[in-house]
Amino acid sequence: MIVVSRAQFTAAAVPLTKMARGRVYFFSTALDTEIPESKRKYIPRSGTYPKGFAVAGSYVGVKASNTRFPDLALICSETPCSAAAVFTTNKFQAAPVQVSKATLEKRHGQGIRSIVINAGCANAVTGKGGIEDAWSMGAEVDKCNGLHEPSTIVMSTGVIGQRLPIKKIVDAIPVTHSQLSSTHSAWLSTARAICTTDTFPKLISQSFTLPSSPDRTYSLAGITKGAGMIHPNMATLLGALCTDAPIEPSALKSLLNHAVARSFNSISVDGDTSTNDTVVLMANGAAGGKSIGSASSADYATMQDILTMFAQSLSQLVVRDGEGATKFVTVRVQNSPCYESARIIAATIARSPLVKTALYGRDANWGRILCAVGYAQGVKSGVVMPERTSVSFKPVDGSPVLKLLINGEPEKVDEARASAILQDEDLEIVVDLGGGEQGESGLAREEAVYWFCDFSHEYITINGDYRT
Amino acid sequence: MIVVSRAQFTAAAVPLTKMARGRVYFFSTALDTEIPESKRKYIPRSGTYPKGFAVAGSYVGVKASNTRFPDLALICSETPCSAAAVFTTNKFQAAPVQVSKATLEKRHGQGIRSIVINAGCANAVTGKGGIEDAWSMGAEVDKCNGLHEPSTIVMSTGVIGQRLPIKKIVDAIPVTHSQLSSTHSAWLSTARAICTTDTFPKLISQSFTLPSSPDRTYSLAGITKGAGMIHPNMATLLGALCTDAPIEPSALKSLLNHAVARSFNSISVDGDTSTNDTVVLMANGAAGGKSIGSASSADYATMQDILTMFAQSLSQLVVRDGEGATKFVTVRVQNSPCYESARIIAATIARSPLVKTALYGRDANWGRILCAVGYAQGVKSGVVMPERTSVSFKPVDGSPVLKLLINGEPEKVDEARASAILQDEDLEIVVDLGGGEQGESGLAREEAVYWFCDFSHEYITINGDYRT
Repeated sequence: MIVVSRAQFTAAAVPLTKMARGRVYFFSTALDTEIPESKRKYIPRSGTYPKGFAVAGSYVGVKASNTRFPDLALICSETPCSAAAVFTTNKFQAAPVQVSKATLEKRHGQGIRSIVINAGCANAVTGKGGIEDAWSMGAEVDKCNGLHEPSTIVMSTGVIGQRLPIKKIVDAIPVTHSQLSSTHSAWLSTARAICTTDTFPKLISQSFTLPSSPDRTYSLAGITKGAGMIHPNMATLLGALCTDAPIEPSALKSLLNHAVARSFNSISVDGDTSTNDTVVLMANGAAGGKSIGSASSADYATMQDILTMFAQSLSQLVVRDGEGATKFVTVRVQNSPCYESARIIAATIARSPLVKTALYGRDANWGRILCAVGYAQGVKSGVVMPERTSVSFKPVDGSPVLKLLINGEPEKVDEARASAILQDEDLEIVVDLGGGEQGESGLAREEAVYWFCDFSHEYITINGDYRT
Repeated sequence: MIVVSRAQFTAAAVPLTKMARGRVYFFSTALDTEIPESKRKYIPRSGTYPKGFAVAGSYVGVKASNTRFPDLALICSETPCSAAAVFTTNKFQAAPVQVSKATLEKRHGQGIRSIVINAGCANAVTGKGGIEDAWSMGAEVDKCNGLHEPSTIVMSTGVIGQRLPIKKIVDAIPVTHSQLSSTHSAWLSTARAICTTDTFPKLISQSFTLPSSPDRTYSLAGITKGAGMIHPNMATLLGALCTDAPIEPSALKSLLNHAVARSFNSISVDGDTSTNDTVVLMANGAAGGKSIGSASSADYATMQDILTMFAQSLSQLVVRDGEGATKFVTVRVQNSPCYESARIIAATIARSPLVKTALYGRDANWGRILCAVGYAQGVKSGVVMPERTSVSFKPVDGSPVLKLLINGEPEKVDEARASAILQDEDLEIVVDLGGGEQGESGLAREEAVYWFCDFSHEYITINGDYRT
């Protein structure tokens, strides 16, 4: 049982102080080693973390070749949480996905206390033994928390088709549990422990207020890793978000669904979807205040905006770390008569190998973008009207947009300016559907945004030479 | 009006003899220059061509940078043909697609005499002027044939968003028409004239018989080019097939749809679909015999098999010429309770960047294949049952299959053998769905096959550096 005061949990600035079971630990980690210079700007130097949560990342050596990096992450709340998760839609669902789903169903999204994550082995396509292993991981965490009912969400990432070194993991859980802490350093170490081929740990946090108690400070923290199936034997998309705001399970589920659709499910590195993808959100209510329940309340609306933007920022770090990526591209499909169709179009552009290679080559090739708009499958009739479709590049420096196609007619493009815009790491592509068949009356109706990276030689090298 | 005897048209072995309007021409072309050594085996040295068709490929210089290669192709039948076509489903349909559709509709698939194709400019996203240009091309061909009704299918391939140099093209049509010929050399020159970034011309022909007149010889010839959107400003998938068998328009349409679904629409280089994709089939009945009408006739069934296999062989040449491709991969999804779902799964594997890069890296990475099976969108419920799914590699040398996954359980893979199999240019991946939820009773039910190539460094170079 964790017995740490709230004062301690909010002390994010306390350096390297570990608090659990009333004891204090010190530790250090090689977090900054081997992180590329260009990625260091994405690693926060401090944070504002939710009350009542303690975390730890420790070394187990799940993968034999890992001799020093943390690969077991543990997140615990001192009180029971509302919890919700979005899981992969892949039909080959890894054991931890099946187990976590069962746990959330059995507990009706309440009474969840912990998240345990290992890197190095995905525990996918591992049969009944794999399911038992996933249960064992969760049960050991529950035992450390003095609980008898399943109260832990389990995640794994790594090689497919191999069993976990379950004894090593279970043996390491009590030690890891004893290192639980609420410091910035502990959060960073936890973020590091779920990485596989990521080049940097992905952690963000923020504080916020809700309309019903404007003087109360809430916090939200999240860690994430990997993107889709960048390295299918190694990676998966995992996300764990924690808040000290009080949220009912049903509201939590709909808040998370909304946020994930617009963040983790709106990014693309290579379009593949792993067997293990999981994003979980825990809310322990430790900061107090009125519980968020009804979707029609002002608190709910505010929480939705905050959570969605937060999840977007977190998921964008995954794109920033896309294998071999040299560009970070936002594609905005606007003035669509239908949100879902706009989303399909954005996703199709984001996944087009030809768009991705053109961007790598700094080529203002609007024909490839237009083609992707035109062949997107599942778009509702009347959404894409060639004569109402416009495409432009929006520079990140705030200079005017570069129009490439207006109402289906190609513009005479200033190639020098196009080239200059494409030199920047960041780019926004705007596809304006002009209201579709509704025309003017459909303007400003629906908008979908996707974030993606380019395909580079490095991507092919990494993915082609993976096992050789 | 073409006045050439049938005897002349069948004289495929006559070297370089051009026949049109009663005159005889000689020509030569630089067909064999710049064709990679490894691709020369795909270029036929002779052929058996359908009676009553004459063809020509000539140089126009549609693209200013093209100073010598043929870029205008003309195919004419001396008598009216039944004709059918399958067009791109891209919503941005190029002008020639719109015009050819209108012509086929207006003529109810009958009375078609010619196909005219230019390379170097796609006449796509070119507004009303582009539509007029496409009509002009067809009208000029009809004029040469002494016809007043639209009787020509028009196709274009090349840069998007630019108008055709229509005067140059229209001026070149009578000259090209005067060079029409039925020789092997003329067919090869015609195949060459539709190429853009293809490294070799794609032409095949074959003779066949039909059950209703076993002593009569029919012929089928076809040319094709490009794949999907390999080079979106330059390429598109075009195919033109001609037969001297007599086929009713309605039967022709269903025969072509069946064949294209299992050939041109079952190949993938990069998964993108162009604005111009068109495959057309003309049947002039010049070889005589009973006309194929009812889908329940023995002739229809035979024709369906012949046309489908022919279209498969022709379309596979496109995959052989995939940009940067080092491998030719067949993916067979078998024992599916549903054909369409099997097809979606095969297409998803064929398009997965991770599968494609793994194959480039000669990596027996069944996890990537399995993941693609699992995330395929639109697959019917009950088709993919993890515990009934098996994956294996089938070597092209006839040696035993290498089992990677059996009924959802990973095999201990002989990596040395896997590596040896993957060294071959050709590979077949077999995904066995085990009958899906129907189990044993669903075995041997439905099967879908896709052909695709790998993603290589060369692909990125070609597509990333296209305009630089």
